[in-house]
Amino acid sequence: MTDLLISWIDSANSDATDFPLNNLPYGVFLAEDGSGHCGVAIGAHILDLHAVEAAGQIDFSGTLCQGDWSPFMARGTSEWARLRSWLQSTLAKGASEQPLLEPHLVSLGQAQMLMPFRVSEYTDFYASRHHATNVGMILRGADGSLPANWLHIPIGYNGRASSVVVSGTDVRRPSGQLKAMDETAPRLGASQRFDFELELGAVVGQASQGPINVGQAFENIFGYVLLNDWSARDIQAWEYLPLGPFQSKATATTISPWIVTTAALEPFRTNTPERDVPLLDYLTELGPMLFDIDLNVAIKPENGPETTISRTNYASMYYSAAQQLAHHTSSGCPMRVGDLLGSGTISGPEKTARGCMLEITWGGQQPVELSSGAMRTFLEDGDTVILRGGSVAKDYRVGFGACVGKVVPNGTM
Amino acid sequence: MTDLLISWIDSANSDATDFPLNNLPYGVFLAEDGSGHCGVAIGAHILDLHAVEAAGQIDFSGTLCQGDWSPFMARGTSEWARLRSWLQSTLAKGASEQPLLEPHLVSLGQAQMLMPFRVSEYTDFYASRHHATNVGMILRGADGSLPANWLHIPIGYNGRASSVVVSGTDVRRPSGQLKAMDETAPRLGASQRFDFELELGAVVGQASQGPINVGQAFENIFGYVLLNDWSARDIQAWEYLPLGPFQSKATATTISPWIVTTAALEPFRTNTPERDVPLLDYLTELGPMLFDIDLNVAIKPENGPETTISRTNYASMYYSAAQQLAHHTSSGCPMRVGDLLGSGTISGPEKTARGCMLEITWGGQQPVELSSGAMRTFLEDGDTVILRGGSVAKDYRVGFGACVGKVVPNGTM
Repeated sequence: MTDLLISWIDSANSDATDFPLNNLPYGVFLAEDGSGHCGVAIGAHILDLHAVEAAGQIDFSGTLCQGDWSPFMARGTSEWARLRSWLQSTLAKGASEQPLLEPHLVSLGQAQMLMPFRVSEYTDFYASRHHATNVGMILRGADGSLPANWLHIPIGYNGRASSVVVSGTDVRRPSGQLKAMDETAPRLGASQRFDFELELGAVVGQASQGPINVGQAFENIFGYVLLNDWSARDIQAWEYLPLGPFQSKATATTISPWIVTTAALEPFRTNTPERDVPLLDYLTELGPMLFDIDLNVAIKPENGPETTISRTNYASMYYSAAQQLAHHTSSGCPMRVGDLLGSGTISGPEKTARGCMLEITWGGQQPVELSSGAMRTFLEDGDTVILRGGSVAKDYRVGFGACVGKVVPNGTM
Repeated sequence: MTDLLISWIDSANSDATDFPLNNLPYGVFLAEDGSGHCGVAIGAHILDLHAVEAAGQIDFSGTLCQGDWSPFMARGTSEWARLRSWLQSTLAKGASEQPLLEPHLVSLGQAQMLMPFRVSEYTDFYASRHHATNVGMILRGADGSLPANWLHIPIGYNGRASSVVVSGTDVRRPSGQLKAMDETAPRLGASQRFDFELELGAVVGQASQGPINVGQAFENIFGYVLLNDWSARDIQAWEYLPLGPFQSKATATTISPWIVTTAALEPFRTNTPERDVPLLDYLTELGPMLFDIDLNVAIKPENGPETTISRTNYASMYYSAAQQLAHHTSSGCPMRVGDLLGSGTISGPEKTARGCMLEITWGGQQPVELSSGAMRTFLEDGDTVILRGGSVAKDYRVGFGACVGKVVPNGTM
């Protein structure tokens, strides 16, 4: 485990910030010229990398001036390393570049964040054993708790890239076809069981054609974001057999504005849990490819304080993003820069570590109490869901910032 | 029903061509300058619309010079009508523009066709009642033949846009996780039950945010392509529960090079079949939104003649593309220019009208004989699958050209 790297930006040198010099996550903010600028978070500031490249202080062929991180990602892993190395050097305490860079700092607290990259396609997985087991028990009874293929395949399904939005975007409660077990015919109505899902999203930074192995898959992942895969459980229950979730997951998926790079998470690599049954060779990891990332979820009702309702860790997942990506290519499926892979809901073994309301309230049967005294089974209009997370070292943390979305009533917007 | 429109291009005036003046489908071909040019098929020729716009003979703000049809589609329905009207006027017999346009004709037979548009996202549906019933019987036994929601929802799932290829592209037999019913553990291997699916693809030409009704959905569809959704049935059987098909459908989806516009199909509009149970209002059609399109499938083994193994009609589908698109937006899912909606396998009521090998050979139990005497349960290496289709009027047909793909062995390419 490395130590805190000291920056000439004081706010980056605290163990309370998500953004020390060890982190350097990439995002896009709305600049004064009205366009999106690529930037890197450092302490309480953003360094405007669009401006830095435009001023000729670095040269990445103009890819940092193109409004999002996709063009830079496409340049490849050695360029990823070159930018990170340059930033860790020039932002370090005592660096001679300080006077040149200081004019390009903007306040993080004032910035409006935009989508950090163009999502090519979005795939969602189902890789937490605790989540899959709980959902199996809630929906299908104790017997059929884990699907027959689950210990062999990192189960995934294709989601909808057009619905991915950045943190801070309001989310309208969806309508859809609903049919309760005791109703004879479906009806169109607003979802009454609207839920969040706490996930981590892996951002694919290199294209591939044909199958790739787990090691290559790990290398192709540029970084990770927090991800909330909003889910309408009542729409889902009626639609999902036989071809999987569709409109229940198409309203919105919210991601954090900051991509924490794989390089920044390197000190926090950890092994996936022990296998019950051996995996096929194409899914076998050669080293630790999961990460130790503390995660939590808070709900803040309209006009009330927020309550943390879940605390868990990404290290509890049965499959890593590298395994998921390798499986994703097994049939020859081409992957592109900007593909986003959701981990699946991250639930730990404890009751307090469940990653969605479906599990927390056990299908709505066990309401949870917020600190205001209000009870929740599923989300109410006006509720803001806040995901936070980070990897914690002795004297610093590598954090993601917050991933925030507020539920607004059906029929508005 | 309108009559054949007579063109100054003689080959367009035959009832044998797919491309009379009544049709005017849009595609992209590899031009002598090495780039993709937008063109329109007319008889045995392609009119190079990139060259026509570059020469100043028409003005669509340069969108016909951008290498595919997506920029033009984004300009909207009145521009779609303006281009069609201009083409039907200037390509008509006696048109004064003949000398100006003749230099921009290229031979259709010599042209290499490219992807006609950029696929934003790809969704596949399951809208043939005969197909859904047959698959239910083959996979789940006679009792559970039609899923409980099937008569209420145009069931769909998200596919993989990166795997969509244009007709003529070879398709590698995929590998994947396989597990036969009598095997205790899965293995990685080449699919032994590789199949085609005869479908029609609807090309979304206008973006939308939030739910749209069926009428608006019909207007937003630019046109239709033939579509072969290659499917590895053995991978599918093992992976699809509980979240739907994933790698079994991610190897390739082949589309015809020509987009036949909704305008060209207007004379062939027909009603969806009578409903068993009433649909919810948001799915109710106000007029005929399906089309009478004859379709057939041929298999051509390596070094052998082709055999037509299925003849069916798009008019047998239970749900139209407009209904599918309206449902797709019901949760607020944003749609974008270039979204592609597969109809689902098109099977008619007759045994000779089944749209995939799974049905034709009843799960591989009833092999089909090709004219060479060879037997097939699923596709063999070297087999070329050819989809053809068109709407037939008294003295002309509006055709799609062929949608062709050859299966090459696993491990090659």
